[in-house]
Amino acid sequence: MSRFFSSRFAALTPYTPGEQPRDKKYIKLNTNESPFDVPDSVIRAAEAASQDFRLYSDPTCLALSQALERAEGVPRDRVVWGNGSDELLNFAFMAYCDENTPAVFPDVTYGFYPVFAAVNRVPATIIPLKADFTVDLEGLAKAKGTVFLANPNAPTGMALSPEEIESLVRSDPARMVVVDEAYVDFGARTVAPLTETYENLLVVRTFSKSRSMAGARIGYAIGSPALIADLQTLRYSHNPYNLNRVSIAAGSAMLGEETLVRERCEKIALIRDETAAALRSLGFTLTPSRANFLFCKHPLLDGEALYLTLKERGILVRHFSAPRVKDYLRITVGASADMHTLVETLKEILEEQS
Amino acid sequence: MSRFFSSRFAALTPYTPGEQPRDKKYIKLNTNESPFDVPDSVIRAAEAASQDFRLYSDPTCLALSQALERAEGVPRDRVVWGNGSDELLNFAFMAYCDENTPAVFPDVTYGFYPVFAAVNRVPATIIPLKADFTVDLEGLAKAKGTVFLANPNAPTGMALSPEEIESLVRSDPARMVVVDEAYVDFGARTVAPLTETYENLLVVRTFSKSRSMAGARIGYAIGSPALIADLQTLRYSHNPYNLNRVSIAAGSAMLGEETLVRERCEKIALIRDETAAALRSLGFTLTPSRANFLFCKHPLLDGEALYLTLKERGILVRHFSAPRVKDYLRITVGASADMHTLVETLKEILEEQS
Repeated sequence: MSRFFSSRFAALTPYTPGEQPRDKKYIKLNTNESPFDVPDSVIRAAEAASQDFRLYSDPTCLALSQALERAEGVPRDRVVWGNGSDELLNFAFMAYCDENTPAVFPDVTYGFYPVFAAVNRVPATIIPLKADFTVDLEGLAKAKGTVFLANPNAPTGMALSPEEIESLVRSDPARMVVVDEAYVDFGARTVAPLTETYENLLVVRTFSKSRSMAGARIGYAIGSPALIADLQTLRYSHNPYNLNRVSIAAGSAMLGEETLVRERCEKIALIRDETAAALRSLGFTLTPSRANFLFCKHPLLDGEALYLTLKERGILVRHFSAPRVKDYLRITVGASADMHTLVETLKEILEEQS
Repeated sequence: MSRFFSSRFAALTPYTPGEQPRDKKYIKLNTNESPFDVPDSVIRAAEAASQDFRLYSDPTCLALSQALERAEGVPRDRVVWGNGSDELLNFAFMAYCDENTPAVFPDVTYGFYPVFAAVNRVPATIIPLKADFTVDLEGLAKAKGTVFLANPNAPTGMALSPEEIESLVRSDPARMVVVDEAYVDFGARTVAPLTETYENLLVVRTFSKSRSMAGARIGYAIGSPALIADLQTLRYSHNPYNLNRVSIAAGSAMLGEETLVRERCEKIALIRDETAAALRSLGFTLTPSRANFLFCKHPLLDGEALYLTLKERGILVRHFSAPRVKDYLRITVGASADMHTLVETLKEILEEQS
């Protein structure tokens, strides 16, 4: 830190992204990426767009909005595009929280929410998950402020139903609810259609998980035209060209691959459920994940020690040190063969323990 | 605007990017893009990187830092990468301005500076350019706060010498100076080497102009390791994956094309000076531009009317409505043939006037 750094941010603790070690080749199950490559149509679109790199990208992201309208029926005035969903989540913290409107979210959830609250200098009200890691909807409803809900939640993978979320949204029309659906396509249900009924609901989504494009940095938010106008105001006040030409073109091409994406999500859900069964038979306890990752612990194994042992053996998973979840590992659902290797490796580790 | 939008931002006037009309094909001289396409090496790198879109990009942008070290000798701990230089300029406003430290910049300069001040809710101190559009260095030196200097300045194209900037930086070691060198490669001189001597100097640069990559969104800042650490803290608190895979790979490839870039900059400077001479012979007054654009006015022509007439005739240039510059047009230096068309069109317009 320099002596010039504003005291506004001197105490900031940044987000820690999943590690990307370079020392050897790992089976990478630590950042919830897709095991499936993008199809050729996306690569061809990327290459074509790169030929026009000399020109600025379209600040309206029209091609993406048109493709999304075709793919999901979202009208163009109800969507805004971000350089990954993180950018839009930050804009939502800016737009809908301030000194008088805290950000409200669970204790165990996406680790970026407390960072966004801190960097925007808004108070955070933490409503702990219940003992079984379900979201305390009554607690959220009672708290004053804008609710941020990851659904399915991270790192538990547990999902609320649209009816549960609707009851929260409807309970107080003066309160904003932001639902982060990064993982919704793997078996949970979206609340995006509810944004047509409720002005106080914003839904944030990403191309990083189900659409296999984490490295293209594409997120979007769906809401009423008035909410979208708020976020566009912030977007045009930060970085009007926030999406580059290649991501706009490649993302638009990916929106033409909805059947493929659906098939892949079903495959991942299947591998997830098979892996969960295998882990249970090894004595692991798992949360009921609807996402593309598993959240599990074993009565005989320390969470951090197991993470380190797996890393030694070439498998990267994610461990969080927060007291409530320190016994757990979050394991991305990868390709079938990789999950098989994971299960076999865990078997070996357990046999060595006994 | 929704009823939920924080009062923090309700009065915000976003930046207006250059128009991108779709109604017909224009000669596009309004956003200071390069007339030269990226070389094949960049397109090949983009295509290869797009094949790995399923994986997150490298948050450390190591490939870019290594390539920059090879190309310009900037050590890796003295650089931070942004999704365009706009993102880094905003981080600099966040890091080095606050309630007690105003942002200080000229009245006529890059139009995003007042927006960054507003969105970060920091006071702005405006030090008008002198009557001849030169920067009032004494005025800046006397003002309290962090100075933001575009060098060459936009939209005048006029440059300060490194010695002039050094005198400002040296005059008060307790004051931060941020120099925005978006246009430096077309004939001005960089102050990047001074960052090794002065801890209170940050230099911000972009791939959008001389490197023909406006659509890839790549910017970087050079400064002491402590300043870079400040900006990394903000970067990791907003969007650790701010650069996508393709931009990292394509930008790294472009850093291997330094000879080509230098040749192209020289060509653009030549076309600029030829066009300036032609415009002068038509009666235009021009500022002495060292950038890839011209800033000019004509005693017989209204600025806005001329902008509109040129647009009707298929040539897009930029007009600003601020009183001090409303008589002027900012015209990007494009390909030789396009500048020839511009000059011929202006001749016709002037003949029709008389």
